[in-house]
Amino acid sequence: MAGEFDLIDRYFSPLAGPEGLGLLDDAACFHPPKGQDVIISKDVLVAGTHFFPNDDPHAIAQKALCVNLSDIAAKGAEPAFYFLGLALPSDIQETWFKSFSKGLEETQKRHHLTLAGGDTTSTRGPSIVSVTLIGTVSAGKMIRRRGAQLGDDVYVTGTLGDAALGLRTITESHMGYDFLKQRYYVPQPRLSVGIGLKNLATASADISDGLLADLGHICKASGVSAHVEQCLLPISEQAQQYLSIHPEISPDIWSGGDDYELVFTSPVKNQQKIKVLGDKCCVEITRIGSIKEGAGISLIDTSGKLVQARHRGYQHFR
Amino acid sequence: MAGEFDLIDRYFSPLAGPEGLGLLDDAACFHPPKGQDVIISKDVLVAGTHFFPNDDPHAIAQKALCVNLSDIAAKGAEPAFYFLGLALPSDIQETWFKSFSKGLEETQKRHHLTLAGGDTTSTRGPSIVSVTLIGTVSAGKMIRRRGAQLGDDVYVTGTLGDAALGLRTITESHMGYDFLKQRYYVPQPRLSVGIGLKNLATASADISDGLLADLGHICKASGVSAHVEQCLLPISEQAQQYLSIHPEISPDIWSGGDDYELVFTSPVKNQQKIKVLGDKCCVEITRIGSIKEGAGISLIDTSGKLVQARHRGYQHFR
Repeated sequence: MAGEFDLIDRYFSPLAGPEGLGLLDDAACFHPPKGQDVIISKDVLVAGTHFFPNDDPHAIAQKALCVNLSDIAAKGAEPAFYFLGLALPSDIQETWFKSFSKGLEETQKRHHLTLAGGDTTSTRGPSIVSVTLIGTVSAGKMIRRRGAQLGDDVYVTGTLGDAALGLRTITESHMGYDFLKQRYYVPQPRLSVGIGLKNLATASADISDGLLADLGHICKASGVSAHVEQCLLPISEQAQQYLSIHPEISPDIWSGGDDYELVFTSPVKNQQKIKVLGDKCCVEITRIGSIKEGAGISLIDTSGKLVQARHRGYQHFR
Repeated sequence: MAGEFDLIDRYFSPLAGPEGLGLLDDAACFHPPKGQDVIISKDVLVAGTHFFPNDDPHAIAQKALCVNLSDIAAKGAEPAFYFLGLALPSDIQETWFKSFSKGLEETQKRHHLTLAGGDTTSTRGPSIVSVTLIGTVSAGKMIRRRGAQLGDDVYVTGTLGDAALGLRTITESHMGYDFLKQRYYVPQPRLSVGIGLKNLATASADISDGLLADLGHICKASGVSAHVEQCLLPISEQAQQYLSIHPEISPDIWSGGDDYELVFTSPVKNQQKIKVLGDKCCVEITRIGSIKEGAGISLIDTSGKLVQARHRGYQHFR
């Protein structure tokens, strides 16, 4: 097995962009483009919590980048470069690095970003992958969570609950459901939609903790409440199929994590523009409710009955 | 025990600066000052490798920030804000957060930086603290590792080997030696020296892997070699005292990690200016050798005999 420095030379240096200075320094140098704000997100993924220890390293790499790309997308920003922190078992094989770096490379190419630095260390515990992602957005144009206005429509991209159901098909060894499984393994950051939203959305977040939890963050930050209509929630064909056999887990649609879709608010007058944006980006965008006075989230069925109030989503340490 | 969101509200939100947007978004927004480059460093600290699992959380927090501040110092930059990634055992006590955040707060105040975001998660393994630190430097003024020139003097700040010896006094339960222990627990990032060096040094790195390893990185990046004179290496009183009892471990002075002093090169003509800088910053700066043709590092004793050739320092996965 090669040592730390050789592994970096072999697998990570080829991924470095100009800010990374060939990974020869302990720091990166970035000359920010004029008129742009710098947007930064950081996520920590732990084996056994955010991915399975034996997952394909290629998919782990993609997921680690995509969950951060999703944060950047939610803010209306464009990704630029990233830092990679790794803590891995000391007996890890070189094939792991080979596959992991391939996953990074593919995701970099797809989303036009490069590696700028990081730190690789060993641990006696589960593997941990920590990515810090840097993007840019026109000065003052970042979409905040704070900003939802009374009467705004609430929208989501894509379909909801696929990743949570995908995770169930994996843990319960249900065959098939490849679409749901793929939705769990590799999130699709909605970058093109996010960039288009920076002149349309009043508030935005990505759905990592479940729709109600993340829309809850928007409402809390904006000092408003939201009514969400259950019948409007976009559900994929495979999710519908799975729920027809396991109807008891339908709350996964609005409370399941790991979707990495966007939830955002926009004034009613923008409805046509939102539709055009979705068509242009080939991403389904669905209006699911509206912003009201007060606090909290209400999920309402077709008869107007409350299905569920706001759920705070998964919390560590509780 | 409070959940993740309450812990963040209680202990981390008060540490947030303007870029952190009250920790209400999943990303930070930074408007870079005109004419400045953005310098970014990232380190991952693992319990059992970089600190002891039962260390005072206050000291762990200080160390996690200071090792990154040291990277920023080596580049001639000024710190601005940071991101905190935590993976902690799920049964961790709230008192841990209280003490840890106090350590962050004190270090923030001392070095004029604020928290801008991060991610807190649970792990079944050892605790991991990952900091990404962002600083700024006048455009084009970052001090690289690449840049050492033939004939340059080689300097170090402070004294060498204290942290490695401090670690030995801890693991071998030697009483006393509080100065050495403190040098292990809480590095002193040489920020004021670094800022002064940006017009004086041709290359610079911080000593995290040991003098010979980190000077070796400078030489490799610069395509030169270095001669270091053993008799010139600055050694603290307590280190001398410890080595007089345990002379066999004197290689800790040039190969021991965790010093977080700076090693840098500068043309001979700058000797007086370097002296003035050290006096102004109240930091000992010592000339320890010079840059030569060729490759590698030679540590030479008073009779000109080779004591040790370059040591690559600690490597994970080997």
